[in-house]
Amino acid sequence: MRYKAIVRYDGTAYNGWQIQPNGITVQQVVQDALKSLTLQEISVTAAGRTDAGVHSYGQVFHFDCDKQFKDITRAINSQLPDDVRIVSCQEVSDEFHSRFDAKWKQYRYVINTNGYDPIRRNYEYQLNEKLDVELMRQAAKEFVGEHDFTSFNATKLSEMENQVRTIYRIDVNERNGKVVLDFYGNGFLRHMVRMMTGTLIEAGKGNITDGDIREMLQARDKNMVHYNVPACGLYLMRISYDDFS
Amino acid sequence: MRYKAIVRYDGTAYNGWQIQPNGITVQQVVQDALKSLTLQEISVTAAGRTDAGVHSYGQVFHFDCDKQFKDITRAINSQLPDDVRIVSCQEVSDEFHSRFDAKWKQYRYVINTNGYDPIRRNYEYQLNEKLDVELMRQAAKEFVGEHDFTSFNATKLSEMENQVRTIYRIDVNERNGKVVLDFYGNGFLRHMVRMMTGTLIEAGKGNITDGDIREMLQARDKNMVHYNVPACGLYLMRISYDDFS
Repeated sequence: MRYKAIVRYDGTAYNGWQIQPNGITVQQVVQDALKSLTLQEISVTAAGRTDAGVHSYGQVFHFDCDKQFKDITRAINSQLPDDVRIVSCQEVSDEFHSRFDAKWKQYRYVINTNGYDPIRRNYEYQLNEKLDVELMRQAAKEFVGEHDFTSFNATKLSEMENQVRTIYRIDVNERNGKVVLDFYGNGFLRHMVRMMTGTLIEAGKGNITDGDIREMLQARDKNMVHYNVPACGLYLMRISYDDFS
Repeated sequence: MRYKAIVRYDGTAYNGWQIQPNGITVQQVVQDALKSLTLQEISVTAAGRTDAGVHSYGQVFHFDCDKQFKDITRAINSQLPDDVRIVSCQEVSDEFHSRFDAKWKQYRYVINTNGYDPIRRNYEYQLNEKLDVELMRQAAKEFVGEHDFTSFNATKLSEMENQVRTIYRIDVNERNGKVVLDFYGNGFLRHMVRMMTGTLIEAGKGNITDGDIREMLQARDKNMVHYNVPACGLYLMRISYDDFS
């Protein structure tokens, strides 16, 4: 049987999603949980990687397993640490693929524009400066649509030729001194959300204009954009398998 | 000179505010910071203790120090770990006492009534059950006013005879699946906010009535109330030196 699971995690203690030689990763603890449960080596495939410190409310992964469970969600959770939690796990078609079938994703970035908050230090970017949200909203429109995001990601060009992605929508909201950006798109390259956010922050400070962002996009130049923001403010909110509407 | 400071902290890693033989405490790291700064042993006195795991946005302490600083807030913060932060520190009258002069305090308790959230596990109580907020609001009125809270705290009677306190107001609000309780009072005994919260949760589940709470208060019996809730949902929000209005 193939299973599709949605997983929430606090990324603070992890070296990202994907298994790697150094440091514990979320994929590792999920696979360890499945191993203690089934006594089999089960590899899971996620819709996307998240970097060290990035959080998830909506990561999706799939895996194959020939055992049946009365309540597989509860069974896996019983083997997981308390900073990782399966929200749902259900049987799907053998054809389902968490990454290839995904139609769009939502990422959120949270910025604290008030004073430093030690309680939220691992869960939002402590910018601790005021931003002009209306300027950010205007600037965000430059990213919406289909663009070559070569200038706005940390993947080397040699690794992936096609860096064209479509952003469907960007929402910029402010509440209680937090600026929250929600990005909806058909795919996101490495550091792409963080680099767009860093750029929108510069727009919100009045340091760059919409025209500057257009130029950065058109340049398709890896050395063009140096704006970035910490991983701790980033949340993978949702992976959708339906068309964006 | 006497100084008054307001300190925020993430209580997760600490064995509460007050210095003790086992485990690191917030008071300890604050005094260590003052020692590295002044090369003197400086003892600080807080408005109230907080238990292990309890957070603060508004703890106040005072201390005496004969050195002068250009920017004492910044100086102390430079010596503190990133989960403790001085919000303000200023010279006050030598007569000022953080605890004796406090007129009222605000504590907040946050309950997640939606599904388990690993990202907020150390910052709100993961009740993960629905509550009737209107029932809680009604029940909360029983605590407002001057009462003997003997039944609603964990201090032994022998340690402190007078367990009469005045609650000025309790607000019960719900937003996005979180129930937030704000308690304003002239003083709070050990576990008092957590025991009142546990009791209000039972009211919100329909398990107890307003009359039951009246009986519990009137009983003045340490064995009467067994409702309590985890420390992680509790925040010391404010210490005020003005009359409550």
